[in-house]
Amino acid sequence: MGKIRAGIIGATGYAGAEILRILASHPEAEAVWAGSRSYAGRQISSVYGNLLRFVDLSCVDDDTDRMKDTITQLADEVDVIFTATPQGACAKLVSEELLNKVKVIDLSADFRLKDVAVYEKWYKITHCATQFLDEAVYGLVELNRSKIPGARLIANPGCYTTCSILTVYPLIKKGLIDPDSVIVDALSGVSGAGRGAKVDNLYCEVNESAKPYGVAGHRHTPEIEEQLGYAAGRPITLTFTPHLIPMNRGILVTAYADLLPKADGTLPTQEELHKVYEETYAGETFIRVLPEDVLPQTRFVEGSNFVDINIKADVRTGRVIMMGTLDNMVKGAAGQAVQNMNLLFGLPEETGLMMPPMFP
Amino acid sequence: MGKIRAGIIGATGYAGAEILRILASHPEAEAVWAGSRSYAGRQISSVYGNLLRFVDLSCVDDDTDRMKDTITQLADEVDVIFTATPQGACAKLVSEELLNKVKVIDLSADFRLKDVAVYEKWYKITHCATQFLDEAVYGLVELNRSKIPGARLIANPGCYTTCSILTVYPLIKKGLIDPDSVIVDALSGVSGAGRGAKVDNLYCEVNESAKPYGVAGHRHTPEIEEQLGYAAGRPITLTFTPHLIPMNRGILVTAYADLLPKADGTLPTQEELHKVYEETYAGETFIRVLPEDVLPQTRFVEGSNFVDINIKADVRTGRVIMMGTLDNMVKGAAGQAVQNMNLLFGLPEETGLMMPPMFP
Amino acid sequence: MGKIRAGIIGATGYAGAEILRILASHPEAEAVWAGSRSYAGRQISSVYGNLLRFVDLSCVDDDTDRMKDTITQLADEVDVIFTATPQGACAKLVSEELLNKVKVIDLSADFRLKDVAVYEKWYKITHCATQFLDEAVYGLVELNRSKIPGARLIANPGCYTTCSILTVYPLIKKGLIDPDSVIVDALSGVSGAGRGAKVDNLYCEVNESAKPYGVAGHRHTPEIEEQLGYAAGRPITLTFTPHLIPMNRGILVTAYADLLPKADGTLPTQEELHKVYEETYAGETFIRVLPEDVLPQTRFVEGSNFVDINIKADVRTGRVIMMGTLDNMVKGAAGQAVQNMNLLFGLPEETGLMMPPMFP
Amino acid sequence: MGKIRAGIIGATGYAGAEILRILASHPEAEAVWAGSRSYAGRQISSVYGNLLRFVDLSCVDDDTDRMKDTITQLADEVDVIFTATPQGACAKLVSEELLNKVKVIDLSADFRLKDVAVYEKWYKITHCATQFLDEAVYGLVELNRSKIPGARLIANPGCYTTCSILTVYPLIKKGLIDPDSVIVDALSGVSGAGRGAKVDNLYCEVNESAKPYGVAGHRHTPEIEEQLGYAAGRPITLTFTPHLIPMNRGILVTAYADLLPKADGTLPTQEELHKVYEETYAGETFIRVLPEDVLPQTRFVEGSNFVDINIKADVRTGRVIMMGTLDNMVKGAAGQAVQNMNLLFGLPEETGLMMPPMFP
Repeated sequence: MGKIRAGIIGATGYAGAEILRILASHPEAEAVWAGSRSYAGRQISSVYGNLLRFVDLSCVDDDTDRMKDTITQLADEVDVIFTATPQGACAKLVSEELLNKVKVIDLSADFRLKDVAVYEKWYKITHCATQFLDEAVYGLVELNRSKIPGARLIANPGCYTTCSILTVYPLIKKGLIDPDSVIVDALSGVSGAGRGAKVDNLYCEVNESAKPYGVAGHRHTPEIEEQLGYAAGRPITLTFTPHLIPMNRGILVTAYADLLPKADGTLPTQEELHKVYEETYAGETFIRVLPEDVLPQTRFVEGSNFVDINIKADVRTGRVIMMGTLDNMVKGAAGQAVQNMNLLFGLPEETGLMMPPMFP
Repeated sequence: MGKIRAGIIGATGYAGAEILRILASHPEAEAVWAGSRSYAGRQISSVYGNLLRFVDLSCVDDDTDRMKDTITQLADEVDVIFTATPQGACAKLVSEELLNKVKVIDLSADFRLKDVAVYEKWYKITHCATQFLDEAVYGLVELNRSKIPGARLIANPGCYTTCSILTVYPLIKKGLIDPDSVIVDALSGVSGAGRGAKVDNLYCEVNESAKPYGVAGHRHTPEIEEQLGYAAGRPITLTFTPHLIPMNRGILVTAYADLLPKADGTLPTQEELHKVYEETYAGETFIRVLPEDVLPQTRFVEGSNFVDINIKADVRTGRVIMMGTLDNMVKGAAGQAVQNMNLLFGLPEETGLMMPPMFP
Repeated sequence: MGKIRAGIIGATGYAGAEILRILASHPEAEAVWAGSRSYAGRQISSVYGNLLRFVDLSCVDDDTDRMKDTITQLADEVDVIFTATPQGACAKLVSEELLNKVKVIDLSADFRLKDVAVYEKWYKITHCATQFLDEAVYGLVELNRSKIPGARLIANPGCYTTCSILTVYPLIKKGLIDPDSVIVDALSGVSGAGRGAKVDNLYCEVNESAKPYGVAGHRHTPEIEEQLGYAAGRPITLTFTPHLIPMNRGILVTAYADLLPKADGTLPTQEELHKVYEETYAGETFIRVLPEDVLPQTRFVEGSNFVDINIKADVRTGRVIMMGTLDNMVKGAAGQAVQNMNLLFGLPEETGLMMPPMFP
Repeated sequence: MGKIRAGIIGATGYAGAEILRILASHPEAEAVWAGSRSYAGRQISSVYGNLLRFVDLSCVDDDTDRMKDTITQLADEVDVIFTATPQGACAKLVSEELLNKVKVIDLSADFRLKDVAVYEKWYKITHCATQFLDEAVYGLVELNRSKIPGARLIANPGCYTTCSILTVYPLIKKGLIDPDSVIVDALSGVSGAGRGAKVDNLYCEVNESAKPYGVAGHRHTPEIEEQLGYAAGRPITLTFTPHLIPMNRGILVTAYADLLPKADGTLPTQEELHKVYEETYAGETFIRVLPEDVLPQTRFVEGSNFVDINIKADVRTGRVIMMGTLDNMVKGAAGQAVQNMNLLFGLPEETGLMMPPMFP
């Protein structure tokens, strides 16, 4: 059997280009089609100089409206389509016919939320493919692994959400924290904001600065709530506050929650909490529960598909502080998408993803 | 009357040098003595090239042990001594005789906590000048203004604490939040870590990285608790988590608390909360309560003595998110020290401190 | 007499906003009018949050075409106009009538080159106010000080050019280097690229990268050649290579030239060369010729109007390496413009410009 | 046959750790021994958190003096030793006995210069293994490929030198530039300065700054001169000026030289010069001669073993500007060392080195 043939819609955004970078080293897959609205007709390597000699593709116009004709054609040429596109684009393109031909891995939020009302409220877009919401599998591999292989449509999780959910999940699952007390404070590098030419993302606007944004209203909130709600066994509400800080890559989550007493009335100890993480993630290739006194740092996951996690009990306040980090371009986007692709095609999920983090 | 003559112990640390920078533009004060252990005998401007032509002082050895002899002499030459020194140094140097001659503004934590047991527990140092703990005035001008002019010894607040306290204070004072629900999540630029040659603070270790540290145990915690406890009218316990992020200057605090219902049983609204801040800080030169939809960013206070603050009600969770920012070198250290000096010597507190923030 | 009233066309670019920042601390001048095309109708402080409480101006639409009507009106309201605008804008606005009413300080290149053919060749714009080319004074204060006070129109030098010219000038003037052997290699922070929303200037494109640009064709080349040609007493040709590096502010010039033998046939020594700089710039407030073994670093001029310069003889090759640095926003743009304003209005040139560099 | 077993002396410096990172993905080699003076007894992954789950080695004390006993033992356990050590260390350790047992790849400068007098003059160290100077092969693969397979001792080139030599070599080799007119102006990220705890390399000292250093006297100068002298067929002298700029990785070289007339008396054109590079480096895996109008940028080689090169003729001055870039940790150190290792052991030189550059 030949290699898996991949097409990427939105290939010249940061996430799309990162898929190209990862596939360039993937032993069982290759990118054969790259779409771009802004750079149609240009070689990928003239936009992403790093990919010179690795990717020899000319960009095809992938404007969503004009794509309707070419998507059928594309479906004949590839085995999997990654949509690294703005909200709403994948929903416009997906169809029964398409899903019968190829696997679709959507990096946008279009199929992440099961409740269309929640989607439309937070994203302020009318969803135009609600018929696939039930079918779409939320591709957070570590929590949903079994559902992925047979799926046709994967909703690849967001960067903040992947980090937040994996960081908080074990203690909610075990009933050791009050789900409604959860506060997720998150820091992100600037690549998460995409490659659009906006004043806010200019070097001089971001460098030497830190800022909160989307406070009490960021779109990743309901995604975190939905997934952690499954763990809690009931709907939950939490506070999520993202911040932009001056670095290229990386998400760092610091989450807070009130500890719940155990059966004997005492609060769980540091050791007990740490053990819960070790047990929950035992056997996970891409989750590194750190030794007790080592805290996560974004620098140690950069360029890799790893998530580093640790916790600290705050005995003075009866809270626990849960900390996690990942590379928003890899585990937070392209790497996780390839991890899903691997499972969809029956490959070991680590295939092509074992690059060690790069430091410094 | 001539200018106020200032001596700086620890003049070649970042905070000490920032005092020199600020005094260089101060119309009523001048630095006449600079101490340094590492650079004794060298011109300040050979260490801090920015001060060439502004400061013409040669560093005097200020090793705490050897200082005991020279401190008496120094007290005759200056009107005020700034101690920008490690914990414990000021406590070793201060004496009744010294305080009778000069004002002392201590930038370390030696006199910030009234309870010596708390100090010794968190700092793990035996306090050797406990007799001055009661007398020392906590120099957070906006909250303690009236007590400063007559003081002999000022405990200049820390950078995290100044930002945290000013950000959270109004709602505790008004009884609108539960003090024990407060969680302070803070980001700091690297200058706060000082100029010591440590691997952890090397460029390549910090750049492109973000990390929490001192989780559930950072020394600034009891200082925040003590001051906010005064506002609450009772001792409080809170969670404080600092993070190091790759920028030179700046503190950004994002604090969370549960809102308390008003007399009518409803929670305070965004507008009401914002108004509390505007009223609390009306007339404050150095606190800018931002317009409702503008969130604090460190870049807009850099190089200045300003604190920018704003809040956001999170109606879904019944919490409020309080955000504040300042320049850790200025309002978080040297600028606040000079603000205290101004009050000690009967000058308007803004004197020499009205430099606008520099952006970009 | 009241304060000098200043109007700024292009006030929401980085250079325009820096003029506002500097004037906010200027004892004898104040900004009374701010133009902006992108932010017409908005408060300056809603765009530049740092200026909150310092500048209380609402932006007036200053689109060059629509300006023709309002410029007459503006001329009645102000004493000096700063044009911090793209190439060609000032030339379109300036007129005999305008210059009879107000002083104009142009921060663009419109009046820097005396030869219109050179201007049009390098800038690829037709110059539409050639009648003022002769009259305009090149406002590099340290070299042209005597011509400035009586001028009506100042061509404020560029950032690269100010640094390059001041760094190389003394040795050309003294005939100690071959002018045609000069190679200027320069590094710039990103603020020099302006605030336009371009992909090339996004944080992630610039951070962790260094690149040459405009190689063998950058527009500042003829400006450097013209001014150094005056020093040489004849036209010269040189190589100028700018680079973009990841920092907000700062220009660092490293220039190379072949030493010429003295009358006795020997090459000038390190000591002799250094002495030439000390003598040439003796008495200059804003030029700091550094001690022999101290090399310029951008961090030590940041935020200030200073230029730090030093040289190193390379005896192995018979060359000299000349190094200079300045803050492109201050001495390279807004600070030098205010320095010119001071001279135009009979003030000491240092007025409002003595802020010490800020480090770190 | 099993994998190549590698030992790394100086494994906890940045270069040593980068060898570990690269070997972690190498299909035919593995690190089996890691030496460190500062971290003896500690797990590598406790120092370099990125290597957690990739490297399971505990550091052995590799103090040069104490090593003399253990080096014999080490030679029995490994096939190749990388010395990522300060100047002089490798010379102290190497011996006939050692070289008979294992291959040695030295990342220091000990065996790079053939003339011991030059070494001792520039490095101010007495060379204590001069008997191996002739035998050592300068491991710049692209120029010396044929000599490497049979060598016992490889002098792995420096980061500045690799970039400078490869950038300038083709035009000297072809006689198209005057070798003595060459000026190499180079920029380096901070990782090149190593992981030593020095004030000069602290984040706040480097960030937002650019500085020249080692002007007219940097130790890499004679190495560049020696190698380019071989291309010129005679000894040459040139000027080399390094600069430190605020980024983690990357070297950018901008080199200048006077063009020499061709046989017909005219200067070579841009097209001719570009073609020389294309021809010289045709077939080279790790050198990418860029398309005519694309200039090298460090961001597009980061994390990879590639060198990107281009040139620009400056017809106004008769010079050529040659530009090259590489990642100082990879092609400038660890990657090139592994490239040499591959050749020493008969593997294709690309083995384990084809990771695409990572951007952003």
